[in-house]
Amino acid sequence: MSTTTTQHTPDVRTSQAPASTAPAEQVSDLGAALRHAIDGPRREIRETARRELDPAELLRDPGLSIPEARRWVRDRLQGLADRGYGGRGYPTTVGGQADLGGTVAEFEMLAHFDLSLVVKSGVHFGLFGGAVSSLGSDRHHQEFLPGVISLATPGCFAMTEIGHGSDVAALETTLTYDPETDEIVVHSPTENATKTYIGGAAEDAVLAVVFGQLVVGEENHGVHAAIVPVREDGRALPGITIGDNGVKGGLAGVDNGTLRFDQVRVPRSMLLDRYGGVTDDGTYASSIDSPNRRFFTMLGALVRGRICVGGASTVSARKALSIATRYAVQRRQFDAPGRDEEVLLLDYLAHQRKLLPAIATAYALTFAQNTLTERLAEVQEAPERDLAAQRELETRAAGLKAVSTAFANETIQLCREACGGAGYMAENGLTVLRQDADVFATFEGDNTVLLQLLAKGLLTNYKEMVGDLDMLGMVQFAVRSFGGSVIARTVANPLIERLIQAASRRSEDETLLDRGWHLTMFESRESHVLESLALRIQALAKETDDPFVAFNTTQDHVLLAARTHMDRVVLEAFVAAIDACEDEAARATLDRLCDLYVLSNLEADSGWFLRHQRMSAGRAKAVTRAINELCGQLREDVIPIVEGMGFPQSWLGSAMLR
Amino acid sequence: MSTTTTQHTPDVRTSQAPASTAPAEQVSDLGAALRHAIDGPRREIRETARRELDPAELLRDPGLSIPEARRWVRDRLQGLADRGYGGRGYPTTVGGQADLGGTVAEFEMLAHFDLSLVVKSGVHFGLFGGAVSSLGSDRHHQEFLPGVISLATPGCFAMTEIGHGSDVAALETTLTYDPETDEIVVHSPTENATKTYIGGAAEDAVLAVVFGQLVVGEENHGVHAAIVPVREDGRALPGITIGDNGVKGGLAGVDNGTLRFDQVRVPRSMLLDRYGGVTDDGTYASSIDSPNRRFFTMLGALVRGRICVGGASTVSARKALSIATRYAVQRRQFDAPGRDEEVLLLDYLAHQRKLLPAIATAYALTFAQNTLTERLAEVQEAPERDLAAQRELETRAAGLKAVSTAFANETIQLCREACGGAGYMAENGLTVLRQDADVFATFEGDNTVLLQLLAKGLLTNYKEMVGDLDMLGMVQFAVRSFGGSVIARTVANPLIERLIQAASRRSEDETLLDRGWHLTMFESRESHVLESLALRIQALAKETDDPFVAFNTTQDHVLLAARTHMDRVVLEAFVAAIDACEDEAARATLDRLCDLYVLSNLEADSGWFLRHQRMSAGRAKAVTRAINELCGQLREDVIPIVEGMGFPQSWLGSAMLR
Repeated sequence: MSTTTTQHTPDVRTSQAPASTAPAEQVSDLGAALRHAIDGPRREIRETARRELDPAELLRDPGLSIPEARRWVRDRLQGLADRGYGGRGYPTTVGGQADLGGTVAEFEMLAHFDLSLVVKSGVHFGLFGGAVSSLGSDRHHQEFLPGVISLATPGCFAMTEIGHGSDVAALETTLTYDPETDEIVVHSPTENATKTYIGGAAEDAVLAVVFGQLVVGEENHGVHAAIVPVREDGRALPGITIGDNGVKGGLAGVDNGTLRFDQVRVPRSMLLDRYGGVTDDGTYASSIDSPNRRFFTMLGALVRGRICVGGASTVSARKALSIATRYAVQRRQFDAPGRDEEVLLLDYLAHQRKLLPAIATAYALTFAQNTLTERLAEVQEAPERDLAAQRELETRAAGLKAVSTAFANETIQLCREACGGAGYMAENGLTVLRQDADVFATFEGDNTVLLQLLAKGLLTNYKEMVGDLDMLGMVQFAVRSFGGSVIARTVANPLIERLIQAASRRSEDETLLDRGWHLTMFESRESHVLESLALRIQALAKETDDPFVAFNTTQDHVLLAARTHMDRVVLEAFVAAIDACEDEAARATLDRLCDLYVLSNLEADSGWFLRHQRMSAGRAKAVTRAINELCGQLREDVIPIVEGMGFPQSWLGSAMLR
Repeated sequence: MSTTTTQHTPDVRTSQAPASTAPAEQVSDLGAALRHAIDGPRREIRETARRELDPAELLRDPGLSIPEARRWVRDRLQGLADRGYGGRGYPTTVGGQADLGGTVAEFEMLAHFDLSLVVKSGVHFGLFGGAVSSLGSDRHHQEFLPGVISLATPGCFAMTEIGHGSDVAALETTLTYDPETDEIVVHSPTENATKTYIGGAAEDAVLAVVFGQLVVGEENHGVHAAIVPVREDGRALPGITIGDNGVKGGLAGVDNGTLRFDQVRVPRSMLLDRYGGVTDDGTYASSIDSPNRRFFTMLGALVRGRICVGGASTVSARKALSIATRYAVQRRQFDAPGRDEEVLLLDYLAHQRKLLPAIATAYALTFAQNTLTERLAEVQEAPERDLAAQRELETRAAGLKAVSTAFANETIQLCREACGGAGYMAENGLTVLRQDADVFATFEGDNTVLLQLLAKGLLTNYKEMVGDLDMLGMVQFAVRSFGGSVIARTVANPLIERLIQAASRRSEDETLLDRGWHLTMFESRESHVLESLALRIQALAKETDDPFVAFNTTQDHVLLAARTHMDRVVLEAFVAAIDACEDEAARATLDRLCDLYVLSNLEADSGWFLRHQRMSAGRAKAVTRAINELCGQLREDVIPIVEGMGFPQSWLGSAMLR
């Protein structure tokens, strides 16, 4: 048969897809109640996905070559589109449901299987379709969204350039209005202006949303985007040079590529002009006067991508933890005196200490993700545009994305090592996950840059639309306007207040597991770090005229401020989720998990707390003891806790699990 | 052409091999002097390798499929064997040089290129050939080593079983002596007894060294090894079932597989009987009476594998740091006020804080690795077998392997992220490195198990040959015999003593960068952790009759003891290397790197030092300030520092470096 020539690795192919006739999943009562909590407000979408999505279809064989994996992803994505998967987020005028929060939950459920598929889906439905939807006018919706929804016109999102990754404002590509022909001329003036890492560009995309500097007359109006056809009948259109990024660290099924434009012309109508465009008389017009504010409004409309990436990362961490924990309660190693069998891995304290705090953190980040998703829905569905709320949402999305992706990478690696040699075998489900999730640390914004963005939002209290990393603006604002930090609680304030009040009436002996004490510790760390940062910047500004020095000298402090803020936001979401949980046994378990999340954080940061006299040496030792005790307690209920993380065992794609 | 059918991914293939006509490398004086220091006592082997090894031949195209990568590795290994690469470690009686230390240096140089190739080389020449050499008698050497050296008989090392990873004593495979036929019967009694992850087993090996329980008469004499032919003309021999482990997290060029034996018979002469065998009259005989001591003597002879793995990991970390640092001085991102160009990545403090402490640690671990290699040569080449010295060597090898592999995995990932999206493209040299190095965390001993082994050695002062993780023995020993920790310095004691004395005469203000203070901090932490561990075990032993509880409850403390010990050993090696450096400028740079290594360690562990009143809050803050200053100073000389890490730029295989 002619097809056998592509079957070049049959001897090393592993088949991990479980039979689709797998028996229905049995979940304990506690597991079901925990899953109910973790599923959050969008649990209906998640439960539907658990009934309808089929691991036999959606788990990718890790032995596929790059061309095979790309084909596999393409076919699966078409299958999803055929079943109406991608339409939820679009306006009702084109048959969508205008349900942005729901698209995040849908994306997270798809991330339970294969990250190439979810990234490809996210690029087409989320980034490309989302840009058309958010940045385009109704006529763009009518013309282009049906083809997005049906996947008739696969799209890509051409923002990043070789020379410009996180610094979107510096893009070099130009979109120049030509009044002679009433066209937009798309051009890459330099090699560095070549779009790169563009998912879908290498093979599939026929349309691209291309970001570049909009030039009308002699004036540059800043970054805008246009829809540009890039391929027809599988070939690049004239003036467009397409490259293939080739082998990557993972995401074998995503055809990332490069796009270079040589004076490519599209009609003026292709400019996505919701926030700014060219009028019939050939002049620039925008509903937003300030170019800076316009830029952030446009980028802000795309915040959902970052939220989805954070969510997919946390889901991936939960998957890895589910695999490693289930393995740790079946795998025995080493005899112990007085025991008939060798000891289960999870009965070793060292193994508990690896997995259980990570599980607690995965629960915490999931609750924070759910809270952020609801905030996205509130802000973006609000009738009036609230710029400060939008800016706060973006910075929180940036922070949670940075924290969640870093956690996922560490945790998947930890899980792979916790499974020993078996963890290194692709058929056990951890290595491809690790390779694929890796990219999230730098895609949709480099994590370090995102944390700086968050810190800037905190320092300026979201009040001013200073540029993404406009150091001058940030330093000046900190010097001029910082009036002390305000802990703006992100979830039900009375609940937090009540817990803190209650703790303040207790003696230290009683408060180790007291949530009010936990909240106080996190809040006071955040306030102190932010206030001392502002003071340092103010002092440096007096010493030097160079705002870069003031910015750069404090950069480690800036990152700490962002991290401590996120720790507090995540804890608040956990506290609110416990409060919302109506099942008594589940609430008790969530309480223990939250204790472990907090105490592990305090232990890891004990240097800070001791240095700032927030914790005594005895207290620090008590924290370590309490962590060990909590690990032992949670070990008892570990199977329901794993069930709570939401993966039916047949979804894990791990050959070693019995 | 018929060969085109294997060229199935030409469109995504990247070619990273530089032209072999690359110009000779230019290295600065300071870079050359630093490289001289880092090359250590085996610098002649390393310099020869830099002249003779050809990156165009030895850097693997990351786009190769698994079958292609295996073929590539096989061809390259034969090429190395043809040039006499593998012979250095074997006895002079078969044409070798009996130079074990030299083989480590050779292995490390090969690890500069491709880890699949180096692992395959290590399996054949190191593990297989090393077992024949160390565990066999002269007649085994004469019969088998020439085929090892020429690669006429590719070998594998069949130790690990499905059911038994780190716990070698528990292997289930049996080697049963049959007096009727004077043969050894090799048998896998259960599925769990199947050998797995065996490099070379899936495709290439024709011989295996098989480890199993030697049964003579009715008596089990513990783990021994025999040479077993496993394949002829590419097919498994009768009674042997060979499987392929398939796709792994990396190491695409290594054919890992499974071996199961069904009553396979080999002549008695195939038993590797240097430490124990069957005599002509069919009885068991050994020069070592204690079975426990015999077991450890046999395993101890294989210590070189762990040393090589640690070395390859540190080399890999140096490679990743070389790539990321060279990128960070060519890549610019974000404007800054008052600057004409965008800012170089390495001019951001956050970026310096990522790369420079890691570079300092890479230097430190390299010096520790060099010291360990010399100790290996001393111990194994000594005329008299010194069991305590051997045991100390093994535990230190275990500790350095654990520390170096964990560091490499973290650091390569850090470097990949520090290069943003470019870091995720395989052609830039980081992703395959990350995937390949990953395995080292659990291969040649799981890192957690190895650190426990080290801690046990420290607690028992290497005095007793208690089983690898014999908890009962360890607890009993700690209770009975622990008489306080003794800091046994691993390098020139007078030098260390002098530095410590000098520091003790200074006030705290003056000692932040004082090596004596650094040494004191590391020594006092180690002593305190070890002593308090022994006290905890003693107290627990009074509370409970169950030694597993005493062992398990203190497991986090055990791991801490091992880590703090290794920190001290690594620092001592750094101090000795600085002392040995004769170039003044290089010595000054090494001094700054050593400062950064120490202060980063103290900062990361500041919680411990504050909790134990070894450091004041003010001191902890001063440490952080000093780190930032050191980063700024070292940034100035960063290119020579990178050159010192020993990679000519053409060896980095990174397309993005200009």
